[in-house]
Amino acid sequence: MASRSATTNNRIVCDSNLFTSRIGDAELRDLLEKQPRGHSLLQPFYVSEEIYRRDIDKVILSHWHCVGHESQIRSPGDFFLFEIDRESVIVVRGQDNVVRALINVCRHRGSRICDNPAGHIKGGYLVCPYHAWTYNLDGSLQNARMMPESFDSASHGLKQIPLRIIEGLVFLSLVEQPLGLSQVEEMLHLTAGRFGWAQAKAIHHVSYLMKANWKLALENQVECYHCGPSHPEFSRVHSQGHRDEEKRTADLLAHAIKQGEHVPIRDHWCLKAAPGEEADYCTRLAMRKGAATASNDGNPVAPLMGDVTAYDGAFNIFYVGPLNHFLAYSDYGAIFRYTPRSVMETELNVTWLVRADARDGIDYNVDRVTWLWRVTAGADKKIVEDNQIGVMSRFYRPGPYSEPIETRSRQFTEWYLHEIAAAA
Amino acid sequence: MASRSATTNNRIVCDSNLFTSRIGDAELRDLLEKQPRGHSLLQPFYVSEEIYRRDIDKVILSHWHCVGHESQIRSPGDFFLFEIDRESVIVVRGQDNVVRALINVCRHRGSRICDNPAGHIKGGYLVCPYHAWTYNLDGSLQNARMMPESFDSASHGLKQIPLRIIEGLVFLSLVEQPLGLSQVEEMLHLTAGRFGWAQAKAIHHVSYLMKANWKLALENQVECYHCGPSHPEFSRVHSQGHRDEEKRTADLLAHAIKQGEHVPIRDHWCLKAAPGEEADYCTRLAMRKGAATASNDGNPVAPLMGDVTAYDGAFNIFYVGPLNHFLAYSDYGAIFRYTPRSVMETELNVTWLVRADARDGIDYNVDRVTWLWRVTAGADKKIVEDNQIGVMSRFYRPGPYSEPIETRSRQFTEWYLHEIAAAA
Amino acid sequence: MASRSATTNNRIVCDSNLFTSRIGDAELRDLLEKQPRGHSLLQPFYVSEEIYRRDIDKVILSHWHCVGHESQIRSPGDFFLFEIDRESVIVVRGQDNVVRALINVCRHRGSRICDNPAGHIKGGYLVCPYHAWTYNLDGSLQNARMMPESFDSASHGLKQIPLRIIEGLVFLSLVEQPLGLSQVEEMLHLTAGRFGWAQAKAIHHVSYLMKANWKLALENQVECYHCGPSHPEFSRVHSQGHRDEEKRTADLLAHAIKQGEHVPIRDHWCLKAAPGEEADYCTRLAMRKGAATASNDGNPVAPLMGDVTAYDGAFNIFYVGPLNHFLAYSDYGAIFRYTPRSVMETELNVTWLVRADARDGIDYNVDRVTWLWRVTAGADKKIVEDNQIGVMSRFYRPGPYSEPIETRSRQFTEWYLHEIAAAA
Repeated sequence: MASRSATTNNRIVCDSNLFTSRIGDAELRDLLEKQPRGHSLLQPFYVSEEIYRRDIDKVILSHWHCVGHESQIRSPGDFFLFEIDRESVIVVRGQDNVVRALINVCRHRGSRICDNPAGHIKGGYLVCPYHAWTYNLDGSLQNARMMPESFDSASHGLKQIPLRIIEGLVFLSLVEQPLGLSQVEEMLHLTAGRFGWAQAKAIHHVSYLMKANWKLALENQVECYHCGPSHPEFSRVHSQGHRDEEKRTADLLAHAIKQGEHVPIRDHWCLKAAPGEEADYCTRLAMRKGAATASNDGNPVAPLMGDVTAYDGAFNIFYVGPLNHFLAYSDYGAIFRYTPRSVMETELNVTWLVRADARDGIDYNVDRVTWLWRVTAGADKKIVEDNQIGVMSRFYRPGPYSEPIETRSRQFTEWYLHEIAAAA
Repeated sequence: MASRSATTNNRIVCDSNLFTSRIGDAELRDLLEKQPRGHSLLQPFYVSEEIYRRDIDKVILSHWHCVGHESQIRSPGDFFLFEIDRESVIVVRGQDNVVRALINVCRHRGSRICDNPAGHIKGGYLVCPYHAWTYNLDGSLQNARMMPESFDSASHGLKQIPLRIIEGLVFLSLVEQPLGLSQVEEMLHLTAGRFGWAQAKAIHHVSYLMKANWKLALENQVECYHCGPSHPEFSRVHSQGHRDEEKRTADLLAHAIKQGEHVPIRDHWCLKAAPGEEADYCTRLAMRKGAATASNDGNPVAPLMGDVTAYDGAFNIFYVGPLNHFLAYSDYGAIFRYTPRSVMETELNVTWLVRADARDGIDYNVDRVTWLWRVTAGADKKIVEDNQIGVMSRFYRPGPYSEPIETRSRQFTEWYLHEIAAAA
Repeated sequence: MASRSATTNNRIVCDSNLFTSRIGDAELRDLLEKQPRGHSLLQPFYVSEEIYRRDIDKVILSHWHCVGHESQIRSPGDFFLFEIDRESVIVVRGQDNVVRALINVCRHRGSRICDNPAGHIKGGYLVCPYHAWTYNLDGSLQNARMMPESFDSASHGLKQIPLRIIEGLVFLSLVEQPLGLSQVEEMLHLTAGRFGWAQAKAIHHVSYLMKANWKLALENQVECYHCGPSHPEFSRVHSQGHRDEEKRTADLLAHAIKQGEHVPIRDHWCLKAAPGEEADYCTRLAMRKGAATASNDGNPVAPLMGDVTAYDGAFNIFYVGPLNHFLAYSDYGAIFRYTPRSVMETELNVTWLVRADARDGIDYNVDRVTWLWRVTAGADKKIVEDNQIGVMSRFYRPGPYSEPIETRSRQFTEWYLHEIAAAA
């Protein structure tokens, strides 16, 4: 039967106006009481514009954001932008070699100063293109032309926000009093440190705009119940989601410990984070038998990294806070960064790392290093978007997480409910 | 005079935020009091997001929706989707040959299960692509992998909603206690029945997204005051809107009754519907002299349908509820289905029917069967969009319906005001 | 380093839902108290949907809008549309040669009548395409077919709104009791009058949709602090923004006055407007040395206009109300019209005028006449869009205007605060 256009309207309906009931403190407390334990969240948590505003203001902004890798800004004047919500941050290496995070808003009339997502600032000055107010790379105002003598330059520098670099990973926070990072630092030394990430280089970035609430994107990120049905390429080389997963990983760990190796496994994630400290989590998992790394065929794709001396059939996975996830394979690393863009849009940025001295086209090939996670992240985009469409139905009811394979999704939603309750 | 871009901004302004005043129960009651009788509606009924939410929740959803024709799903496993508001419904023929309407939302974590607008489900199972929960075609949960023993499969089937097939037309309702259909059934037997629609086949669908409130689309659908100015192609072959319309139709009916024919004419539409019953309406109208059917030149375009034995210069028109309109010509049928998409967007789907045994390219040609109503529906899209733009003006005032030629538009708005008043 | 898509999300975030806090009268008064003097506006004035609605309804609509030039509608039946907010106005020359402003909404069921942005109405009647209600060009209803005898045609004419033509400039107002125009008329005779604009012709229009609040667009329009950094092409031929600006202009004025010339300079703009009168402002400024007009190279681009007898190294600038700005060079004129489109969208329309008897391709070349202001307006679009992005940051703080070069921006915001305070 011929058809000139689709019979049914199959588009993604993302109009938040569909859900007009206002959610104030009382409505939120009521929702929290109704939320069934061990189940996915009630609909408003995935669709309400007002809950999304609370998520950003009360839950998200106070955490640390992994915005890139130090290798992206090696020389004084090198910079890249990080954008979240209505904020744009210039991450720039100063003339003094210090990397700072400066708010990308001129102190004169508020213009965005820099619109290039990454690059090099020539001459050592950030000049606002509007009226040419000129800032030093440390954010201080160097010159504001034609301003009267009474003008106080010292109080008109660019706003600076907290920034930390740990094992090459650049973290920033948008609040004055950020969470502590001592636990994260300890964990990253044990994980990223062993893989030499501080000396690695970023070779590729891809961003995926997922038309889904950030919590659906992260519930998906942290469970492998879906890996079998949805990620055949991933499943060929990883043990996760397979029946023998636990045994393979246990054997591997036993072997490593017998060899005297220190295997970092710890869980300070979600509600297990120490008070006032950013959450962290790390573990080590077995690859699928015969796979050296996460590639199309399991074969290596780049030189061994850091202190790694052999392909031992395993990889490290670690998290920092709710939005930053990392995978360290023997020969490459991958940074997964989730950034909410709107109530039903979340951006996933993936950055790939290899040894700094590896030669493009000789020691590695970008397409080959990135293939598996491009395929897998692309499939995840489709999955979470279908999840968003489904939870918008008035017939949607929270469903049960499958334990233990979806335990971390449950822990994630429990952490979220705790944080949002504190904001009610 | 040269111009590189339009002098004036002529685009359709559809931003519902333009109208920010909130319309609660009190404001709605006030509007209902101010609404002048016999006139088009006050502005907020056409533009307010909040009234639109009431329209959907309180007026639209409780009615029956004609979502297609049985010929679209002949074999077990055949399905199509119907989508309205935030809902997606799988209309599927089961292994037991029964057609059911299942909500397209997995009971695990709420993913959309099926994203193909129509097709065939292989193997007899609906499998959610996310975590592979597997449902039978009757909606019951067949298998949820890795769930604990305590998990109650029986209570995790897909939600089923009311569905009825009458004379081949598939109707569904999104409420638990739908309106009665006995009057509709009686009417459809007398109309669609005579034209053999139960044995017909759907040969084509076209959808038109009209950037207009659903009420403007339907006020237009049910009057022919505009047919003369706006639909020259339609007017060539139909009597409606012509001066001799009433006489031609009266003569034709007198002739039919004299021949002993039962001509179904009845009006249970709008406020004339029996309490608790879905509304229906049918009549028989004269074609323009010399026209056998609604085609480019009035000549037949397909074999005679059902019990029809000759081209008798007439056609049947019938309605079910507010959103479903039908035309039965001697040689083809047309289903007009209006579905609100947002406060200022309405989708019109047109489906064409011919005899099931008619052969494509031999007995009929799709382009020729569908030509007149493609042209006419395309013109209607432009008309109602211009109407929407006009009623958004602060200078718009409700204007008088021209009686009797716009009587049904008036009846439609009176019905609407009654329904929305009940929801205030 | 390769990248398949941008690392960071650099798009313009214009979602007004980002700012959900409601701004009622109390919140507005609170904002007005917090607003620092001599600084750019507090964030909500640039981003709040609710403040934008007040801006339109209480501040913008009561002013006069320069919607075009009389030469665009020379003959009876000639028309163009003007559109603002949800309104569309037909500006049409009647059979009696009078130009009128008629609301483009049919009095029957509210359809837009005319969708062509400009053209000629044939036959002397405006016919609504929907049901063919027919209006005379003075707006009166000529015929409504099929309406009952009791129908009162006289009360169903198109709504007419105030319109005035001064020195060829067409102004209209959307309120019943518009501001007085006597001061504006006097000023325009002294400025546009001297340049013969009443006898000029419009040769080109370009519209720029700026993704910025209208107040940011106008703060930019009225200061030349940014001209040096942002408009090198402009600065080549104008004195504004140069250090010797004041001296050059003073010398020029002294010379003119010595010659017995009357140089119109007056400031009735913003809070200096007489009560109940539309605001006006005019001055005369020096060109850059050696520049005859505002062109690529400073050389003339069209014949001298009106009473101008020589290129004297100066030009006139004048304003009417908040949204209409004019430049009169010796050989051409430019009308700058700003129209808010949404809280974060403003349309700038530029119209160029030359002598009516100048011949296209012989006496002038459109590309050459329009070049400088196309380049400059295009740059302004970028500037104000970056400004909008910046002020959306939670770290944005109002910054100090640079006096005297940004004095008019300050005066504009002070006027705005006064008007919006009156609406609180």
